[in-house]
Amino acid sequence: MQANALLQATPASYIREILAATRAPGMISFAGGLPDPQLFPMSVLQECAATVFSDPDACQYGTTEGDPALRQWLADQHDCAPEQILITSGSQQALDLIARAFISPGDKVVVETPCYLGALQVFQLAGADIVTVPQTAEGPCLASLEAALAEAPKLFYAVPDFHNPTGLSWSAQTRKAVVELLNRFNIPLIEDAPYRALRFDGDMLPSLYESGLAEVFYLGSFSKVATPGMRVGYAMGPAGLIDWLKRVKQVSDLHTAIPMQRMVHQLVQHEAFAGHLQTLRQSYRHKRDVMAEALDKALGDRMTFQAPEGGMFFWASVPGVDTTELSKRALAEKVAIVPGRAFDDSGASDYSLRLNFSHATPELITEGVNRLATALSSFPR
Amino acid sequence: MQANALLQATPASYIREILAATRAPGMISFAGGLPDPQLFPMSVLQECAATVFSDPDACQYGTTEGDPALRQWLADQHDCAPEQILITSGSQQALDLIARAFISPGDKVVVETPCYLGALQVFQLAGADIVTVPQTAEGPCLASLEAALAEAPKLFYAVPDFHNPTGLSWSAQTRKAVVELLNRFNIPLIEDAPYRALRFDGDMLPSLYESGLAEVFYLGSFSKVATPGMRVGYAMGPAGLIDWLKRVKQVSDLHTAIPMQRMVHQLVQHEAFAGHLQTLRQSYRHKRDVMAEALDKALGDRMTFQAPEGGMFFWASVPGVDTTELSKRALAEKVAIVPGRAFDDSGASDYSLRLNFSHATPELITEGVNRLATALSSFPR
Repeated sequence: MQANALLQATPASYIREILAATRAPGMISFAGGLPDPQLFPMSVLQECAATVFSDPDACQYGTTEGDPALRQWLADQHDCAPEQILITSGSQQALDLIARAFISPGDKVVVETPCYLGALQVFQLAGADIVTVPQTAEGPCLASLEAALAEAPKLFYAVPDFHNPTGLSWSAQTRKAVVELLNRFNIPLIEDAPYRALRFDGDMLPSLYESGLAEVFYLGSFSKVATPGMRVGYAMGPAGLIDWLKRVKQVSDLHTAIPMQRMVHQLVQHEAFAGHLQTLRQSYRHKRDVMAEALDKALGDRMTFQAPEGGMFFWASVPGVDTTELSKRALAEKVAIVPGRAFDDSGASDYSLRLNFSHATPELITEGVNRLATALSSFPR
Repeated sequence: MQANALLQATPASYIREILAATRAPGMISFAGGLPDPQLFPMSVLQECAATVFSDPDACQYGTTEGDPALRQWLADQHDCAPEQILITSGSQQALDLIARAFISPGDKVVVETPCYLGALQVFQLAGADIVTVPQTAEGPCLASLEAALAEAPKLFYAVPDFHNPTGLSWSAQTRKAVVELLNRFNIPLIEDAPYRALRFDGDMLPSLYESGLAEVFYLGSFSKVATPGMRVGYAMGPAGLIDWLKRVKQVSDLHTAIPMQRMVHQLVQHEAFAGHLQTLRQSYRHKRDVMAEALDKALGDRMTFQAPEGGMFFWASVPGVDTTELSKRALAEKVAIVPGRAFDDSGASDYSLRLNFSHATPELITEGVNRLATALSSFPR
């Protein structure tokens, strides 16, 4: 049996493909977007599990839209109705459901470039015609975005807070301008916000969801603030559109695991949760600082980068160095990175790379950066 | 934003749509395919949870193909390689992944009729041209199947053990004949086997997977033997094809919740598991007997049925009575059933209905059948 044309045209994820390599003994990985497992709130989770697994109802089939208590909690958080929330198996699934519900092959979809790989794959598998808008230090290039929106695409997909892979956050001015453009052209937005709660510096800026757009999906995730292995995320949007997603979700997997939903609900309500979030932000801020310092010290003369105000990633550039080749040599030095090409096949990111700072310990961050410097030293200046 | 044409053409599940109604106070539900929550092994699951949540690795991102230990356990059970196993979020997801990987709009897919609703939805959403083969008491009508396979469909989807909705199991002879036909026409099979372990009477018959087919996916589920809310199932098949499913799974939701996979693995290895399975079979056999007796007594003069040798469902017929209307009147009497039309829009099942016997207590089964008799008495003979 042959895979269909759409799947054949969808490349596998570079990051998932090298996952095995990054787990090799002695490897320091800056490649994945992995949170620090040492910060997982295991003892609280054990408490939550004991509660959840005392009720057989947690193990029965549940409703497709999600556990009522968790949906209500999210509705309270976002000041919306529970009917506007669909619980999904991570926000990756929310994105996939949107594409399956609304995209037909050939539809135009606008994305920032470089772009989150999982989003590119979703839109490729849906057969979308992907239109890219380059990023500036403030967010998407507004002139390019305007031109792209004028072509009447189906939707615009964006990560305004601590973008993956660039770490960038849109300025308040850009947010306002994008909302204006979307309203002018009447184009729906997907606001993917998995890192939004991980801000270490600067002020929280309003989400685009809150800014008065007509059609907008906000994708939230518990992967970064609880744990990713549990696979709990959500889509929030107009109830009528959420209802379509629910229809696809029903066909996909009936519903997300109820014990995981209930444990997340227990966790976010736990008295220790606020402290857990604070610890997370402090630890990640420290790691970001360690990575910035190490990069400055070991690579400052060849590599440019800007330290992000939150999230999990540095985006760095080494003019003239093909980072796909650099990634290979880095693996030989036992440090894993992701080359820019994985997020952007236009050639514009060929000298760039993504570095994750949330997973490794501060000691290993410094050591990994030094190994990267060794790998880079084999390239002529 | 409008849903795309494929989704607009995919009807919502009747069963999921009436789920809220079936949960109304005082309602006796024979509608869903729900296992008995009183038989969930909660104390063992609590033990498993304590173990699983002591290891942060259970909460980290995992590999798309599934937890290595659970895959290895399944490979040992089925005498295959771990590369032939993909863990999915219930077997519903396995089916959806197969359709997304291999079906293109317009492809012919052969199914038995009546057919599992979730499968119909998957194939409809994939844009397949669904070709139906009627069932006999022995399995699919072989002449119809031969004619359907001669049209070179993409695949044949079947539930040979304790079919949903008919409760039917294929005879050994039919299994042999179907394998022969599939090999002759070189058509891949999806063998959906969620109820296979729930046999109360008669001998276990060989799965079609074991019978020497060239291309076959076997879909397994832990929903009926562990618990459904945890959403753990699997697809087994040729490693090359499983690899395509893995590609779609990656795009869909990255991977199935690791704590759920590990808990299932702990559970099936637990010393109490064999006893749990035995209790399950005994209890369901008893409930089946109670339902058969109640149907005989209260409805034997108007309704025909055959008690199944396993699984969760009776399929019954009331000549001349539109069971869609009967379902409505039954709801008013506070008993929920599923009309045949939900599984078959050809008209051939309009006088039939599905009754689940695994969920209600024996007392409520008798009471529910009596209520159904009251609802039916409002129809003229």
